[in-house]
Amino acid sequence: MTLERIEHRACFGGWQDVYEHASDTLGCTMRFAVYLPPQAATPGATLPVLYWLSGLTCTEQNFITKAGAQRYAAEHGVVVVAPDTSPRGDEVPDADGYDLGKGAGFYLNATQAPWSTHYRMHDYVVDELPALVESAFAVDDRRAISGHSMGGHGALVLALRNPGRYRSVSAFAPIVAPSQVPWGEKAFTAYLGDDREAWRAWDACALVAGAAERLPLLVDQGEGDEFVDSQLRPGLLQAACAEAGHPLTLRLQPGYDHSYYFMASFLGEHMAHHARALQA
Amino acid sequence: MTLERIEHRACFGGWQDVYEHASDTLGCTMRFAVYLPPQAATPGATLPVLYWLSGLTCTEQNFITKAGAQRYAAEHGVVVVAPDTSPRGDEVPDADGYDLGKGAGFYLNATQAPWSTHYRMHDYVVDELPALVESAFAVDDRRAISGHSMGGHGALVLALRNPGRYRSVSAFAPIVAPSQVPWGEKAFTAYLGDDREAWRAWDACALVAGAAERLPLLVDQGEGDEFVDSQLRPGLLQAACAEAGHPLTLRLQPGYDHSYYFMASFLGEHMAHHARALQA
Repeated sequence: MTLERIEHRACFGGWQDVYEHASDTLGCTMRFAVYLPPQAATPGATLPVLYWLSGLTCTEQNFITKAGAQRYAAEHGVVVVAPDTSPRGDEVPDADGYDLGKGAGFYLNATQAPWSTHYRMHDYVVDELPALVESAFAVDDRRAISGHSMGGHGALVLALRNPGRYRSVSAFAPIVAPSQVPWGEKAFTAYLGDDREAWRAWDACALVAGAAERLPLLVDQGEGDEFVDSQLRPGLLQAACAEAGHPLTLRLQPGYDHSYYFMASFLGEHMAHHARALQA
Repeated sequence: MTLERIEHRACFGGWQDVYEHASDTLGCTMRFAVYLPPQAATPGATLPVLYWLSGLTCTEQNFITKAGAQRYAAEHGVVVVAPDTSPRGDEVPDADGYDLGKGAGFYLNATQAPWSTHYRMHDYVVDELPALVESAFAVDDRRAISGHSMGGHGALVLALRNPGRYRSVSAFAPIVAPSQVPWGEKAFTAYLGDDREAWRAWDACALVAGAAERLPLLVDQGEGDEFVDSQLRPGLLQAACAEAGHPLTLRLQPGYDHSYYFMASFLGEHMAHHARALQA
């Protein structure tokens, strides 16, 4: 696979880069961002990787320009990889609205036409992208995963579906029960069809019951989040984890909304959480 | 004066707000951002204020979404105020191009038609805005100033023109000698007219010679900045300060460009510099 570097910017002693490549999994050209901290320049060193999954409407740019992650990544010596949120390009089907199609891949493998050809973000993020990153950069197979909103859903689901794949997982304002909220119902109906039984494989609240690994979940949720009651519903995850005996740290943060101002405020604690697990 | 709060977001234990108000100085409606750190909630406390001046094309939004300043402001207990970069509104004259007119006020008082009615950003930032801020929030008259690119020019010029007004000043990749570079020559010709003698009152390199106060200048400049040789020319400030005996710390940062990735990387050190001066 050929990687083309299209951005290269010094940042906190390391480099904030963006790469473009042809994705076999998605059948289109994709971009991803990678922050290489100063420790990446040490000859012979290999670093662990945090994968960051962004929310609806985002590209690989939002997180790297607005979250302030590079400072923490430089402190901890962690590489941060932020993929795009869906397949891209003229050949990729799209829909009206911000919550389906491009920018709204929901980190699943679609089974329904016209989506099933390109919308395979689960396999891209879990398999193709790490294989690419681990072959191109001085990183090893220590992986962590986190994300925001739709990307928080993605982080939880990918960790729960793939035991042993990630050493730690966290989420900011995740869609914890997509099968039960409007964003998820719209996307799952389109990507997965009408059979709600098939949705359970992509729903964190459904997955915790059968999780083969008790990887602790760290979740921050703003209490002032405009989507908390309609789309996010952290109480459903709390109940599912209590029932399954799955370890969960759910922190409700008074006053905080759904924005990057919320996420930036607690990202340092999440980065420390991941660094501890990655470097244990 | 009436302040209308149009954004209010919890951030690092404080609040990132945006206000709108009618400006007498500029003759239009203006917006500014203010970050109130957690210490602002202490009854009876008054905090110092850092004024941040942004560069060409920016509004009050760029700095608050991309620089990561709130974390440092919360650590140090400093309020951060970020105004817009020019007068705004349908009644305000504009020009083609990004480097004159709206988004390009250059922090001066224009003397030439059609600009002189509204383009009075010096007086707005030095007088009207602090009066407003100091009457509306729990802050006192301890003030610092910093900025980026055109805003770095603004920070240096406002500090040099107004001895005693600011306790500290710093700049990222500032236009240090606008009289001698294309961005400045275009703007000064339009705003101030053809008499280059009148330009000296708005040019940091010209002002250091006669500065009534030896306020130390802290300047960071990326060596990989695409504008360093054509528009920024830090060597001219170094020479002017050496000749005048004006204290300057100029740090050339290898590899860094003109972007927020550069600024974010060194903002923590600038915030610590200002906090020391503000709290001395």
